Amino acid sequence: MVEATALARNAAGIETVISVLKQRFGDRLQTGASVREQHGHTTTWIENQSPDAVVFPHSTEEVSEVVKICAVHKVPVIPFGTGTSLEGHVNAPAGGICIDLGHMNKVLAVHEGDLDCVVQPGVTREELNTYLRDKGLFFPIDPGANASLGGMAATRASGTNAVRYGTMKDNVLSLEAVMPDGRVIRTGHRAKKSSAGYDLTRLLIGAEGTLGVITELTLRLQGIPEAVSSARCSFPSVDDACQAVMATIQFGIPVARIELLDTLSVQAANAYSGLDLPETPLLLLEFHGSETGAAEQSETFGEIADEFGGSGFVATASTEERSKLWQARHDMYWASLQLRPGARGISTDVCVPISRLAECVTQAQDKAAELNLLAPVVGHVGDGNFHTLVLIDMGVPDEVARAEEFVGWLNDTAISMEGTCTGEHGIGQGKKPYLIRELGAATQYMAAIKTALDPDNIMNPGKIV
Amino acid sequence: MVEATALARNAAGIETVISVLKQRFGDRLQTGASVREQHGHTTTWIENQSPDAVVFPHSTEEVSEVVKICAVHKVPVIPFGTGTSLEGHVNAPAGGICIDLGHMNKVLAVHEGDLDCVVQPGVTREELNTYLRDKGLFFPIDPGANASLGGMAATRASGTNAVRYGTMKDNVLSLEAVMPDGRVIRTGHRAKKSSAGYDLTRLLIGAEGTLGVITELTLRLQGIPEAVSSARCSFPSVDDACQAVMATIQFGIPVARIELLDTLSVQAANAYSGLDLPETPLLLLEFHGSETGAAEQSETFGEIADEFGGSGFVATASTEERSKLWQARHDMYWASLQLRPGARGISTDVCVPISRLAECVTQAQDKAAELNLLAPVVGHVGDGNFHTLVLIDMGVPDEVARAEEFVGWLNDTAISMEGTCTGEHGIGQGKKPYLIRELGAATQYMAAIKTALDPDNIMNPGKIV
Repeated sequence: MVEATALARNAAGIETVISVLKQRFGDRLQTGASVREQHGHTTTWIENQSPDAVVFPHSTEEVSEVVKICAVHKVPVIPFGTGTSLEGHVNAPAGGICIDLGHMNKVLAVHEGDLDCVVQPGVTREELNTYLRDKGLFFPIDPGANASLGGMAATRASGTNAVRYGTMKDNVLSLEAVMPDGRVIRTGHRAKKSSAGYDLTRLLIGAEGTLGVITELTLRLQGIPEAVSSARCSFPSVDDACQAVMATIQFGIPVARIELLDTLSVQAANAYSGLDLPETPLLLLEFHGSETGAAEQSETFGEIADEFGGSGFVATASTEERSKLWQARHDMYWASLQLRPGARGISTDVCVPISRLAECVTQAQDKAAELNLLAPVVGHVGDGNFHTLVLIDMGVPDEVARAEEFVGWLNDTAISMEGTCTGEHGIGQGKKPYLIRELGAATQYMAAIKTALDPDNIMNPGKIV
Repeated sequence: MVEATALARNAAGIETVISVLKQRFGDRLQTGASVREQHGHTTTWIENQSPDAVVFPHSTEEVSEVVKICAVHKVPVIPFGTGTSLEGHVNAPAGGICIDLGHMNKVLAVHEGDLDCVVQPGVTREELNTYLRDKGLFFPIDPGANASLGGMAATRASGTNAVRYGTMKDNVLSLEAVMPDGRVIRTGHRAKKSSAGYDLTRLLIGAEGTLGVITELTLRLQGIPEAVSSARCSFPSVDDACQAVMATIQFGIPVARIELLDTLSVQAANAYSGLDLPETPLLLLEFHGSETGAAEQSETFGEIADEFGGSGFVATASTEERSKLWQARHDMYWASLQLRPGARGISTDVCVPISRLAECVTQAQDKAAELNLLAPVVGHVGDGNFHTLVLIDMGVPDEVARAEEFVGWLNDTAISMEGTCTGEHGIGQGKKPYLIRELGAATQYMAAIKTALDPDNIMNPGKIV
């Protein structure tokens, strides 16, 4: 594990709060080691820093009650969705109370006429889409994990559909949140657009629980398209594939998804998902539209792919084939781990202007080779965002050091290309130094906002600022 | 004029700052009455509150210099674009220095491959689109006026294309801004998406210059579509027209524009723009896509319109006819004023969930009739946003009082329908009481952010919070 910085603990306050909450919440307050550890869980290499207790509220009022008690005693509050974030977001470096929002998992309203819905934060993206299917609607944001919508908002998540439908920032109409003093606010209502004051919705989206606990989300929905088709195409090199992506975006084809797998990733997918893809860089695409619209998009892409040496172009509207391909894409994390059984996978998350994408991916591959690291690449390349999953043996210090060097080098490289160290995973504990390198003086104003809204630094301390 | 609240003046500080700036900027500091009055100009009914001086910087460094001097002496700074905002945004209720960004009007870079550009804040939307035309690109946000891009960001503006392309919040990738202490920050770079810390980009968009002066914008661009066609269709009633809009949106037709004109507005357009439209409620539409895509959208809309009693459906791909129709739409403000020569037009700006749109527009028409007010309606109805332009004789106090009653009633009605009092114009001075009614406790956190970033309240004081 990579050590995470511990912060000073308010032991007396924590003890008091736990005894008050125990009385109030009974069995819904848990202090057992395994529950606590599970709530400091991180799927990356940052060490586990468990909270002192986990509480399971059922309502906004209960969240408010917990936060008010913690505020009085200046005890940290760590909001928790599904624990699938990657940068130590749910760690408790100063201990404190984890609020597990998993019991707040109701879809409160679906307004079909308005293409919106109101959900509690513990609803996962898959649960919501299952709920919506009969209504002909869907929510497009799909990070790798079956994350909770509250957590997805908190980290400004996106996924494979972002190239067409945007990220969480574009798909949340408004929020209800419990602020660090325990008061409940609404950041807006259900209008599709608004110029009413500071955009607190967007401020809380991506704040990683450091400014408040999201307790309700009003989400923008999409109609399930009349036609959905997918395509795959192999390329001689990552550079050719990226050039094809750039041309596709510039041509204005409204692709719903355009994903890159490098050769290593294709090999991993073939082995894990029983596929038989040519073992060269691959683009996976999905087209949404009317029957003619989706077909037209697919055809135009086919022509572009030709120009860049694409081969084995296969388009299909078959639901079964499509599902198999996209399931393989969603399983890439597990598939990649199988390239080196027993290894831990560390995911990078840089995002660069698309004109720099080919260069950035190629340089990343070269750098990984130079450092003798196994690091398959997958990417939401329509946005210029890609992940390398560095596969390392955490027991070999030199290997960990080389992985750290790689991650740092890649973040700095993306920043030097006018990009960002994080397209969708967030800062958490892991990327704090890079945030400062990326945004410089701006981070001081972030800190000022944090201090203004949370003067005692109780909301998810040690993250972002 | 409706009186605006004056704030305490720091007369000594202002005098000192003017003498320092005069020395530094020479003729680029203006203190003449007409220049000052023009910079407190408001196109609405709020009285003019002129700044004490207007400075015309040429660079970010010069803006920073001005703000630093003002910060030392605690003197108000009012950023100014084109002065076309509607809620007293550029008024100077405590006097101070207006920073006119009109000389910072360069397009600094266009990255065709990335579909983005970098501009100074004084570039107007028309200037930018003229600059881009040869490159096959455009910037879609089009408020009524030929506003500056800095001002459009500051008010979170939108316009007729927002139903397809979103508002300023969706089309700005990042900003450079001079903060209240005079330091320069960048809120991001050119990546299409980012999860890097608090979203200061979105915080400054819509902050109306109260948190900083926007000195550079990185904007997302769109490729000019292969095909653009437009259509118009008349309806027996506003309700029918709104039902057709609702069905169009629910059906997922990606209309680029869908605008409502009520009967009064159609009459105004006929008279002003020499048209011969049937004098019943009208929808104007525009479709963007491939040749077949745009044609398909138009055809599907035609079928929907039929269901709701639409008549006189005319679709055209002719650039000339299209321009004539949209020019008439953009001239609606002037056309409406001609319904009552000499009257002043007060624009409302409510935005409601689309399922409530028909009800809200109809109630607004009834209320205007009840109050004996002439108030034509136009609307960006695909977003649920519409404007009534209340035409009043400012010399008749009873009429002004009735107009105030109407505006207040409409804002409250929209809020009660889970909407907002402002879809795109902003809060400024005029809507401060409604912001509190709309967002309650949330406004206290806005105030806390304002105090944290601008402790001396020098940045555009008296607006929003």
